[in-house]
Amino acid sequence: MRRRSGQRAHVVGGASDAAGEMGPLRWQVVAAVVGGLARALEALPAVLRWLWAGRRRPPPQREVLFFPSQVTCTEALLRVPGAAPSGCPCNLPHGESSLSRLLRALLAARASLELCLFAFSSPQLGRAVQLLHQRGVRVRVVTDCDYMALNGSQIGLLRKAGIQVRHDQDLGYMHHKFAIVDRKVLITGSLNWTTQAIQSNRENVLIIEDEECVRLFLEEFERIWEEFNPTKYTFFPHKKGSR
Amino acid sequence: MRRRSGQRAHVVGGASDAAGEMGPLRWQVVAAVVGGLARALEALPAVLRWLWAGRRRPPPQREVLFFPSQVTCTEALLRVPGAAPSGCPCNLPHGESSLSRLLRALLAARASLELCLFAFSSPQLGRAVQLLHQRGVRVRVVTDCDYMALNGSQIGLLRKAGIQVRHDQDLGYMHHKFAIVDRKVLITGSLNWTTQAIQSNRENVLIIEDEECVRLFLEEFERIWEEFNPTKYTFFPHKKGSR
Repeated sequence: MRRRSGQRAHVVGGASDAAGEMGPLRWQVVAAVVGGLARALEALPAVLRWLWAGRRRPPPQREVLFFPSQVTCTEALLRVPGAAPSGCPCNLPHGESSLSRLLRALLAARASLELCLFAFSSPQLGRAVQLLHQRGVRVRVVTDCDYMALNGSQIGLLRKAGIQVRHDQDLGYMHHKFAIVDRKVLITGSLNWTTQAIQSNRENVLIIEDEECVRLFLEEFERIWEEFNPTKYTFFPHKKGSR
Repeated sequence: MRRRSGQRAHVVGGASDAAGEMGPLRWQVVAAVVGGLARALEALPAVLRWLWAGRRRPPPQREVLFFPSQVTCTEALLRVPGAAPSGCPCNLPHGESSLSRLLRALLAARASLELCLFAFSSPQLGRAVQLLHQRGVRVRVVTDCDYMALNGSQIGLLRKAGIQVRHDQDLGYMHHKFAIVDRKVLITGSLNWTTQAIQSNRENVLIIEDEECVRLFLEEFERIWEEFNPTKYTFFPHKKGSR
């Protein structure tokens, strides 16, 4: 009697035997790879957002101030460093106002301040500029020669403090009202830096952190600064026409 | 003698048989899928850039004008529509200047123009505003009452043309120098709209397409427009103090 051949998996069909035994494993590997790729694609937007947030800077400064400003106490802002802080006993309100916001924008200066001002007689703004000068901020001032001679002008006090001031000698007016803080923030508008303008006029001031605007205004300042070089002064042989 | 069991692949190991025959095909499918995913990942940045470019709008208008302006011929800009264009025989230069760029920014108005001006006596700027009014642009003007009465003021001509003009009655000055074009573009600076300022003073004008700035200046305009409502006029019982 012949013995029938039996099914003996470990002998018959070497390759197919291997596929048979390793098949499920290969498929598991493939499934894992594809699954990993799919999860990576899902996660991609979140990763991009995270990278972007890490690079995102704070939005550039952009502020609009309208005047007349409410009259508020600005002593705390203009206090001499080291003076003891104390509750101010004065009767004025002690909140924010357009003037206090303008003062804060100026007092943020750490390196440089260019002022190009038609008229400058506000004691608070004058005090702020002197504080900056005392702190070592490089301050340069350009102003209109007619207005610098008026009573109450802050220009004389700034000069006494050692701040460089230049002025025009033209028949026309140096009518700008702008400031540049740290070569980075432009402060410009209709406002002359006088108490009457701050307290009584309808005025506007923009505070803009914009590279291109700042660059153009800086160029304008340097042009005027050089043109008003004191070595070129002729001490007003002409009398200006009326406004 | 016993016959030894033979290797009979088609009987033994049914599953491994199938894997053996279909194995290469499955692997090809898997390779194709993984390859496709890899190419999709490679192409992703390019697709994102293409989507982004499709959405990108033209950059917002941002311009800075400095004065005094070169004196140039502005007849072509201010010509009455329908008048025959002709070579201008005048001796003035015919290129661009700060004044011509300011005129162009105004003449771009298609729907509305708000003017909030301390002083307005420039004939060219007056002509531009009248042209806009004739084209159907809604023009509203706010000005300072002291200056609107001066010789050479354009305000009377604008009123005669049917343009709405309102003014203050305060002791303080309406000292703004801004315009809003189509509720979209803000034109503001130190410049009073007078020929002396345009031709003789150092001045600046910013032209800014910025939603937030425009919104704030529009609010200021509407506030002043309502406050200067003619039904509230008392026809100047006070005399203003000196500047």
